[in-house]
Amino acid sequence: MKKILVIHGPNLNLLGKREPGVYGNDTFETINCEILEYAKELDFDAEIYQSNCEGEIIDAIHNARESSVGIVLNAGAYTHYSYAIRDAISAINIPVIEVHLSNIHARDEFRSNSVIAPACVGQISGFGKNSYNLAIQALKRLV
Amino acid sequence: MKKILVIHGPNLNLLGKREPGVYGNDTFETINCEILEYAKELDFDAEIYQSNCEGEIIDAIHNARESSVGIVLNAGAYTHYSYAIRDAISAINIPVIEVHLSNIHARDEFRSNSVIAPACVGQISGFGKNSYNLAIQALKRLV
Amino acid sequence: MKKILVIHGPNLNLLGKREPGVYGNDTFETINCEILEYAKELDFDAEIYQSNCEGEIIDAIHNARESSVGIVLNAGAYTHYSYAIRDAISAINIPVIEVHLSNIHARDEFRSNSVIAPACVGQISGFGKNSYNLAIQALKRLV
Amino acid sequence: MKKILVIHGPNLNLLGKREPGVYGNDTFETINCEILEYAKELDFDAEIYQSNCEGEIIDAIHNARESSVGIVLNAGAYTHYSYAIRDAISAINIPVIEVHLSNIHARDEFRSNSVIAPACVGQISGFGKNSYNLAIQALKRLV
Amino acid sequence: MKKILVIHGPNLNLLGKREPGVYGNDTFETINCEILEYAKELDFDAEIYQSNCEGEIIDAIHNARESSVGIVLNAGAYTHYSYAIRDAISAINIPVIEVHLSNIHARDEFRSNSVIAPACVGQISGFGKNSYNLAIQALKRLV
Amino acid sequence: MKKILVIHGPNLNLLGKREPGVYGNDTFETINCEILEYAKELDFDAEIYQSNCEGEIIDAIHNARESSVGIVLNAGAYTHYSYAIRDAISAINIPVIEVHLSNIHARDEFRSNSVIAPACVGQISGFGKNSYNLAIQALKRLV
Amino acid sequence: MKKILVIHGPNLNLLGKREPGVYGNDTFETINCEILEYAKELDFDAEIYQSNCEGEIIDAIHNARESSVGIVLNAGAYTHYSYAIRDAISAINIPVIEVHLSNIHARDEFRSNSVIAPACVGQISGFGKNSYNLAIQALKRLV
Amino acid sequence: MKKILVIHGPNLNLLGKREPGVYGNDTFETINCEILEYAKELDFDAEIYQSNCEGEIIDAIHNARESSVGIVLNAGAYTHYSYAIRDAISAINIPVIEVHLSNIHARDEFRSNSVIAPACVGQISGFGKNSYNLAIQALKRLV
Amino acid sequence: MKKILVIHGPNLNLLGKREPGVYGNDTFETINCEILEYAKELDFDAEIYQSNCEGEIIDAIHNARESSVGIVLNAGAYTHYSYAIRDAISAINIPVIEVHLSNIHARDEFRSNSVIAPACVGQISGFGKNSYNLAIQALKRLV
Amino acid sequence: MKKILVIHGPNLNLLGKREPGVYGNDTFETINCEILEYAKELDFDAEIYQSNCEGEIIDAIHNARESSVGIVLNAGAYTHYSYAIRDAISAINIPVIEVHLSNIHARDEFRSNSVIAPACVGQISGFGKNSYNLAIQALKRLV
Amino acid sequence: MKKILVIHGPNLNLLGKREPGVYGNDTFETINCEILEYAKELDFDAEIYQSNCEGEIIDAIHNARESSVGIVLNAGAYTHYSYAIRDAISAINIPVIEVHLSNIHARDEFRSNSVIAPACVGQISGFGKNSYNLAIQALKRLV
Amino acid sequence: MKKILVIHGPNLNLLGKREPGVYGNDTFETINCEILEYAKELDFDAEIYQSNCEGEIIDAIHNARESSVGIVLNAGAYTHYSYAIRDAISAINIPVIEVHLSNIHARDEFRSNSVIAPACVGQISGFGKNSYNLAIQALKRLV
Repeated sequence: MKKILVIHGPNLNLLGKREPGVYGNDTFETINCEILEYAKELDFDAEIYQSNCEGEIIDAIHNARESSVGIVLNAGAYTHYSYAIRDAISAINIPVIEVHLSNIHARDEFRSNSVIAPACVGQISGFGKNSYNLAIQALKRLV
Repeated sequence: MKKILVIHGPNLNLLGKREPGVYGNDTFETINCEILEYAKELDFDAEIYQSNCEGEIIDAIHNARESSVGIVLNAGAYTHYSYAIRDAISAINIPVIEVHLSNIHARDEFRSNSVIAPACVGQISGFGKNSYNLAIQALKRLV
Repeated sequence: MKKILVIHGPNLNLLGKREPGVYGNDTFETINCEILEYAKELDFDAEIYQSNCEGEIIDAIHNARESSVGIVLNAGAYTHYSYAIRDAISAINIPVIEVHLSNIHARDEFRSNSVIAPACVGQISGFGKNSYNLAIQALKRLV
Repeated sequence: MKKILVIHGPNLNLLGKREPGVYGNDTFETINCEILEYAKELDFDAEIYQSNCEGEIIDAIHNARESSVGIVLNAGAYTHYSYAIRDAISAINIPVIEVHLSNIHARDEFRSNSVIAPACVGQISGFGKNSYNLAIQALKRLV
Repeated sequence: MKKILVIHGPNLNLLGKREPGVYGNDTFETINCEILEYAKELDFDAEIYQSNCEGEIIDAIHNARESSVGIVLNAGAYTHYSYAIRDAISAINIPVIEVHLSNIHARDEFRSNSVIAPACVGQISGFGKNSYNLAIQALKRLV
Repeated sequence: MKKILVIHGPNLNLLGKREPGVYGNDTFETINCEILEYAKELDFDAEIYQSNCEGEIIDAIHNARESSVGIVLNAGAYTHYSYAIRDAISAINIPVIEVHLSNIHARDEFRSNSVIAPACVGQISGFGKNSYNLAIQALKRLV
Repeated sequence: MKKILVIHGPNLNLLGKREPGVYGNDTFETINCEILEYAKELDFDAEIYQSNCEGEIIDAIHNARESSVGIVLNAGAYTHYSYAIRDAISAINIPVIEVHLSNIHARDEFRSNSVIAPACVGQISGFGKNSYNLAIQALKRLV
Repeated sequence: MKKILVIHGPNLNLLGKREPGVYGNDTFETINCEILEYAKELDFDAEIYQSNCEGEIIDAIHNARESSVGIVLNAGAYTHYSYAIRDAISAINIPVIEVHLSNIHARDEFRSNSVIAPACVGQISGFGKNSYNLAIQALKRLV
Repeated sequence: MKKILVIHGPNLNLLGKREPGVYGNDTFETINCEILEYAKELDFDAEIYQSNCEGEIIDAIHNARESSVGIVLNAGAYTHYSYAIRDAISAINIPVIEVHLSNIHARDEFRSNSVIAPACVGQISGFGKNSYNLAIQALKRLV
Repeated sequence: MKKILVIHGPNLNLLGKREPGVYGNDTFETINCEILEYAKELDFDAEIYQSNCEGEIIDAIHNARESSVGIVLNAGAYTHYSYAIRDAISAINIPVIEVHLSNIHARDEFRSNSVIAPACVGQISGFGKNSYNLAIQALKRLV
Repeated sequence: MKKILVIHGPNLNLLGKREPGVYGNDTFETINCEILEYAKELDFDAEIYQSNCEGEIIDAIHNARESSVGIVLNAGAYTHYSYAIRDAISAINIPVIEVHLSNIHARDEFRSNSVIAPACVGQISGFGKNSYNLAIQALKRLV
Repeated sequence: MKKILVIHGPNLNLLGKREPGVYGNDTFETINCEILEYAKELDFDAEIYQSNCEGEIIDAIHNARESSVGIVLNAGAYTHYSYAIRDAISAINIPVIEVHLSNIHARDEFRSNSVIAPACVGQISGFGKNSYNLAIQALKRLV
């Protein structure tokens, strides 16, 4: 089975415990189980990684260069200012898909701008935990 | 089968004939066939509508209020300035999903801003014709 | 009796069915009846027109040039970007009064800017359906 | 009879003597007489107040809290920067209607922005001295 | 004779009746006669089309793809915000020349920006009805 | 005992009667009693002054130059535009501490900017009536 | 002798006591003596007025309408935001000359913008107390 | 004793060694001793944490969710761009107070904007090391 | 024959040698020959002038006041910032037509703004060397 | 007698022939005569220089370093963008006074910004040819 | 030999593998060898450090305070938003030189702004791997 | 020996006499001697040119096209607005290196923007007279 990497950025480890009105009630663990299962259905071996540290996310993206065929990336708030993560995405040759749980275009002004988007294949935003599955399905078509 | 409405906005009727480097080689007819088929697989009866006229798109959104359970909307360039379409979306109670063939966040500055996004459930952008299928699948979960 | 034209722009046909928290519970039909009646009290023969299409609203403004003594215009969301409607207003010689149901200066940022205002006699905003009556009364003084 | 307060802001005491091309020929006294009379027709006991001082206008708004059922406010140039008057309006519970003699949306750039508008019920702008009467009529409906 | 399409956008049907200080005294009909005649001198068979509707202008541009060798387009106020018309121009392969009666760079701030310009061959602005003739002559060289 | 001056700016006289959701339920009188008492605990003789008038607040700041060792200033909405109050603070040699009941950085955009801050020692914002006490304590250290 | 009015705005009463590095060492009283004397040399009977209150400055401008032939105005920090003072200047028919002690164009960003300038005859800025004398001399030529 | 967490962000470990003109002469160790002592006086068991890494600060905030009753946070330069730290603060339920040694509103333009402020209870800025003590005292009232 | 002046601004002397992808392959000499010839066909005696110096271009414009009936001006990069050339154009009474080889509205952001346009009769942009001929023809109609 | 230099920038050589509504009817020669005479009254030997070339104005400023005690500079339109002239002023040690015939703060937006002002002693704007005399008088005090 | 520190920021570890069109073909290892060698030629003992983590780069800068005589810093994308790294540079007393492989002023808009520049001695940008050598040579002169 | 051209822009002729705090004490002549000598060491025959005139600098760049292998350009204040010099650089095929004595990114806001940078190979800024030598060395590698 081909390997894909699913990266959760800052604060996503608190899913289910954090602002459920915005991010839903499912816990981080439950969501990861569903992602792994859905990936398997599509013949992907998904690896899941979470970090609150911008530098570690960059490391993870670098490492996936050779081990994975694609990345699903929820960069959390780094989405809005991390040009370093954007450069990391540009520096590798596998497709990266940007996902967001909530519709970032319908919230605070600063959240509607993604500095990593120009380096990604596409963006899926607003479908709760289902955003990850849609991204994995999109990846299926691309690889 | 539940009915859904797929709306193509301005210039999308020329798909396949227009800037294939950006929008791909598939013709408008082929894409619509695939959409209808994919919808059927998910037990949806999809109706497809195209117009270059902002007012007619608003009419179509209004009419779907009672006949459909959801809308997949590619508003084309109206995405970037039609507050009237945004108001139309807010005025109805069924979910609307915004789709784009190309990654609008990775192109000209003006294309990264969507004035209709705050009224939509979510946005899928950058996966070519597959964007429509992903949106239909997202709709499946919501209705 | 002198004739006046009352134009309702995009989405106003859904009045009563759309976001009642913002726009009130009265239906489009009820409001129009009250407008006609109030106009008659002031010795005006009011004609009511609604369209979701920018181009048709321009046509209606053009046509009123010779048939009417004044226009009451609720341009809906076109208020915020239709320089074409503004030009249509400048192109005729009868007074046009801009009305809004809600106080556009107290809502989203983009709604506080009216591009048609510089071509209108004045603006009445925030009094619900009574905004139309106040506009008709203002017209009474002007013609 | 219920009491209402009509507040004229800075420079309005010079009406009739100041830029008649913009503000008309009627003197301040004449206009006030007409306001009082029109208010009486609608069963209101109108009190009229003028001050060039931002602080005194705030005092007047505070005092009206208990004595009046509504306020008609022409804040003059303070409209464009007095967040303190806006706070005064928010601090009381009676409706305040913003009026302007000229159409502020059709003049200098800085005049089209009203910082007090978000705290007012609605805005009437551009009908000369008739703006006050329209505001009183609007108040009639509200109280 | 080769066919060219001359498109007049919103409000241009009122030429001669509208703000003659800005747009001149010649009526729409007179100007069209002169355009047809001048085109014929240059061995072009000109078709003239006018619409106030953005969507219909897009349709006209699409239709010209196969029937005409070039387009002369005065998009009126749509010039300043219609990204949809710009996309229509990009979607076809024949040259489009943007014309304006008045010098749009010497009027209101908002009129100096043309969103359709990046998709056009060139722009001719400020020569009254002669702008159309200069555009036809420019087209002569290009086709 | 050393004297300090506590200045309340516009609308603060309505405390307890005004938007309790934002500013709390304590009345202006209660708060002032607590301030006087707390100041006494720290060996300060506090004088309390309130005015809705920008000019009178400037006068009060000038007068404190010789009578007081420090000022606690809640300039209300003047915080956001009164460069004249800022100049008054720069013109005297005793420390001025800026306080706000609510967290001005977490409210409307315009409230997060303080034009008087560059002339003050420091800013305390968001602790309700306790903001005054914290400022008095800070003053204790400085004088 | 013809009468002129010299108005000092906020904080200018502290001249000589306030930031001497910026505003010089001469006291308010000394400067006024010199102004009176210089005016007399030019056959003017100068009246000097100082207030920290925007509203009182407006009153003073209004009152000068009939008593004086011209005004020399140092509006202090009100220069940068008082549209109300600007309107007061526009409302009278005698020439007003704007003066500043320091070169406002060479200091903080906000100080280089004068909202009252468009209503004044001219501006003299940067010559210390001599700015007043130059203004009086300029007035001499104008009246 | 209840536990509180005091977080020092980037570069604060160099206190006493770094720009003493701006940040004072006390060393990091001295300041921490005083903080611990002052906290004890108010019956708090303070834990002190310093990191130059954005991700580690987020981790520390997460961990305090269950162990502490409140956080005093000096986020250093991250204050001005770390939306990730802001999200971390929003994600927990204990009060966070923002502190700064220098008055951030009186320095470089970019330092006057705090992106974390909207998620904090309040802000204390400009009192040197005393800012921490004032924050601890403010926390005392809140918990 | 009436005299006209054709002015080429900075860097245009390198035509044919400079970025041929943008400006074409024709040399400066060839283009000038064609301009002279075309002018003669229209009964104009054209004088051609080139300078890289802003001041010399201003001198040339001044001198044409009495010798020529009109000017065709390609101001090169000065188009985007030379308010001095704009003032020179305003200072004379003969018509000036602005031309550009490439479509300045379709290139870098800064090139779409012309500060000289408000002083010119009209603008012709995007037709290569033919832009000059179109301008001469436009001049024919005007003089 | 001490020497001063009066510099006229671009287009001022056309005074009397250029836009008399804005700049007055006096010719360049007349004005210069009056300047020379007025300077002599104040015991100055004035040299007058005019150039349309930015570089030559810089040369003139450099040369005055040793020969003159002060400069009166009307930089014309260069006022608004010539940072090079500003640097020339900063590079010499004699006082430079900026003058303008018209009130630059009351005209087009771009004319209210002077990039040379921060390097000048002061600015005199709006008094027609008298602006020069006021500047010479101001210089008298400074040298 | 004196010690210097060369810091490579995020993504530079992929040099030679990443976007060779922009960053060249030399690998990270090769470049480092050349840097070490060149430093030795200039009698410097260079230490090389790379990290993708903002916090670790700050740590490295802190540590160099005592061990090194200067720093050559390529902060990668952190250049554009890391005020924390800027503060770290200000906090130490040894010279820091900013380098970039590509000319950051000739690429995307966001890349032309360096927030760390105001704390550095100078900037060298655009010479590929030679940028490091030029910086070391510049350091030679400074220490 | 290959020839290179070193261009000094406006005001640099005053080096040593002008703001030594910013630009150093070395005179223009000394610096030029050192440049010539250093160039010779690297086997370059350097020609030095200085002008205060934008147009003459453009001429010099044009002339170097055939005589020199590279240019070292300190454009002085023209750096910030001369799009004409930028076009001149783009118009030739030899490498141009931008240098500045002071770190332009650490001074006034307007000095951090270079409009000529996008046309240059690279930029060296902040090393005093050594900036020229570093540029010559960089040129060595390029030619």
